[in-house]
Amino acid sequence: MKQTSSNRGTISEIAARAGVSIPTVSRVLNGRPDVAPATRARIEQILKESGYVHSKAARGLRKGSSGIIDLLVPGLDNPYVTEIIRGVEEALRRTGLRLALSFTQDLPLGEMQWLDKIADRATDGAILVLARGQSSRLDELRRRGIPFIFVDYRGELGPEVPSVGTTNWAGGRMAVEYLLSLGHRRIAIIAGPASLRCSLDRIAGYRAALEAAGIPIDPELIRPGDFRLQSGYTQTSALLALPHPPTAIFTGNDLQAMGVFKALYLRNIHVPEHMSVIGFDDIPLTTIVSPSLTSVRQPLFDMGRVATSMLIRLIAGEPLDSLRVELATTLITRESCTPPPSPTLKPREDSQQSTLE
Amino acid sequence: MKQTSSNRGTISEIAARAGVSIPTVSRVLNGRPDVAPATRARIEQILKESGYVHSKAARGLRKGSSGIIDLLVPGLDNPYVTEIIRGVEEALRRTGLRLALSFTQDLPLGEMQWLDKIADRATDGAILVLARGQSSRLDELRRRGIPFIFVDYRGELGPEVPSVGTTNWAGGRMAVEYLLSLGHRRIAIIAGPASLRCSLDRIAGYRAALEAAGIPIDPELIRPGDFRLQSGYTQTSALLALPHPPTAIFTGNDLQAMGVFKALYLRNIHVPEHMSVIGFDDIPLTTIVSPSLTSVRQPLFDMGRVATSMLIRLIAGEPLDSLRVELATTLITRESCTPPPSPTLKPREDSQQSTLE
Repeated sequence: MKQTSSNRGTISEIAARAGVSIPTVSRVLNGRPDVAPATRARIEQILKESGYVHSKAARGLRKGSSGIIDLLVPGLDNPYVTEIIRGVEEALRRTGLRLALSFTQDLPLGEMQWLDKIADRATDGAILVLARGQSSRLDELRRRGIPFIFVDYRGELGPEVPSVGTTNWAGGRMAVEYLLSLGHRRIAIIAGPASLRCSLDRIAGYRAALEAAGIPIDPELIRPGDFRLQSGYTQTSALLALPHPPTAIFTGNDLQAMGVFKALYLRNIHVPEHMSVIGFDDIPLTTIVSPSLTSVRQPLFDMGRVATSMLIRLIAGEPLDSLRVELATTLITRESCTPPPSPTLKPREDSQQSTLE
Repeated sequence: MKQTSSNRGTISEIAARAGVSIPTVSRVLNGRPDVAPATRARIEQILKESGYVHSKAARGLRKGSSGIIDLLVPGLDNPYVTEIIRGVEEALRRTGLRLALSFTQDLPLGEMQWLDKIADRATDGAILVLARGQSSRLDELRRRGIPFIFVDYRGELGPEVPSVGTTNWAGGRMAVEYLLSLGHRRIAIIAGPASLRCSLDRIAGYRAALEAAGIPIDPELIRPGDFRLQSGYTQTSALLALPHPPTAIFTGNDLQAMGVFKALYLRNIHVPEHMSVIGFDDIPLTTIVSPSLTSVRQPLFDMGRVATSMLIRLIAGEPLDSLRVELATTLITRESCTPPPSPTLKPREDSQQSTLE
C-alpha cells in the first residue's frame, strides 16, 4: 500500500551522484549563493535528469518565499485525512518546502482561526481538505494572493476553483455492480453526510447500478450516515430490524463499515457468510481487521500528492492542465463479500448460531 | 476519547467576552501595535483570566519569532503518532503558533534531511517523536540555539535532555498482573523492537509481574516484534505451534495485537473465549475492532500536549519543573480478555470449530 516513486532522486541520491554533500544540494535547491558555479551547474543538471520536483516551479518559489505550504484538514480522527497528509508530505519531501498543518475541527470557526493564524505569517500556498470553502474565505485567500487548492470540497465550487477529487459516482456504482454480480438483490447503503457532494455522488452511483439492473429502489435501504463508526452501527441495527433485511451493506466510508461489523458481531451474524459488507476509501484499516474489508479505493495518497504538485505549479505561476482533477476509484476485493445465503435457508438456523445466540 | 479543555477560552470565546472581533484578539496575541490601548488592556485581562496559554511564555515568543514549532515524527503509518500530533495541535491551538510537520521515514537520513530543511528557515523549537537522537544531531540543534524536546526517545538520553514518556515498566507489569488475576499462567509477550527503551521496559514489567507471582519465565513465550501487524501475526503462529501454547498474549502495541487477532481468526480461535489478548497504547483502533481490545493506555494525546507546553516554556527561557516527565499508564479493560479455558477441555473440539475448520 505504501507508495514510492522509484524513478526520482532523493536529495541524498542526488548528492551521491554529484559527489557532493547533502547540504550542498540543499543550498542549490534553496538558491543560496555559496556554491561554486561549476558545482551548481553539475547539481542542477543531475536534478533535472532525476526529475526532481524543481525546475521552473521550485525556482518560482524562491523570491520572497516563506518556504511553507499550509495544509488545512478537519482533524486526525479519520484515517482518510492521514493518507492525504502522507501524500502531501511525499510530494513536498523532494522540495525544500515545509508543511504547516492546521485542524479546523470541522467547524467554520476553525477555518476562520486558521486564516487568522496565517495573517501575520507568510505562506506560499494552501491545500484545503474537506473545507467548507465559503466564498468569503476564498475571497480572503485571493485578496492576500495566496494560491490554494481544494481536496474533496464539500459542496459546489465555482469552475475557477482548482480542486482534486475522486470519481465518487463511478465508485458507488462499481461497489453495487460487484454485489449484484455476486447475486445480491437486497443491497443497502449507509451513506455519508448529505451535506457533502462526494457522499451524494456515491448514493447516485448506488441508484444507477440498481436501476440499470432493473431492481426497484427501496428507500428503506438508503440510510443516512455521518462517516463515523456509530452511524454504521446504528443504521445496521435498523436495517436488521426490517421485515426483509438486506443481504449486503455498502457503506459511505470504511469507518462506518467498522460500525456495521460491530453490530453484526454482537448479533453473531458472520461476515461474509451471512452478510456482505463493502466500504469506501480503502484506508489501511481495511487490511488490519478480520475479515479484511472489501472497499472502493479512493487514491487518497495520490490525491494529496497531486494536489501538492498542482499547488506548486500555481505558486510558480505555471498553468494547470486542468483545474478540476478527478482520480479514478477502483474496487479492492478482500474477504468481506460473498454470494448471498440461499433463500431456502432464510432465516438461517444452523447449529453454530443457535448455540451462541 | 476526544479530549477537550473546557475551562480555557478559545480565541472566539475571548473575542466574544471582550466584545471585539477575532482578528483584534489575534492582533493582541501577536503583539501588533494597531489596537487601542484600552481595548488591548481589556483583552489581555480576559486572556489572563481565561488561562489562555500566553502569559510570559507566549510573549517570550515574540521577538524574532518564526511563529513555528517543528514536529518530527517517523511517519503516519502508526496511529500512535497521530494521537501525539493531535495533542500537539491542541496545545498550539491556543497560541498563535503554527505546526510544521516532518517525517523521518524512521531513517537517520530523514532526521538529517529535516535538519537540512530547517537550515534556512526559522523554527522556534522542535518536538522529536521516537527520534534516534544521535548526539551529533542534538549538538546541531544546540549549536543553532533551537530548543527541543523528545517524546518516547529511542535509547538512553543524557540527563540534560528534556523528554516526555510514559511509565512503560508499570504498564507492562499491570497488563500481566491483570491476566494473572483472571487465572492465566501461560502468558506470552510479543514485544516491540529491542532497540527501543520503551519496549525493553515493557518486557521488564512483564517479567517482574510473573516473578512476583512465582511463575518461572519461559523464554519461548517472549517473542520479538517490530510494532507492526505482521510480527503479531507471525509470532502468534509460532506461539500456537508450541507444545504448550499460551492462553493469553500481551503485545508490545495495539497494531501487533491486530496481527494476533488475524492469526487467531484464520484458525477460528475465538477471542477471548479461546485466547485472551491485551495490547499497549490504547489507540482509537481498540474500540473500532470487534471484539474491542483491552489495552494499556499510554496517554499519547497528553504526551503531545505536555511536550508542547514544556517546549513553549523552554522557548520563553522559563525553567521546567522537571526535564524528564513520565505520564502514567492505565489499564483499559474491554472485551478481549477472560479467564482461560478450563484445562480439562483443552484442546477444545466443540461443534462450532469442527464445522468451520
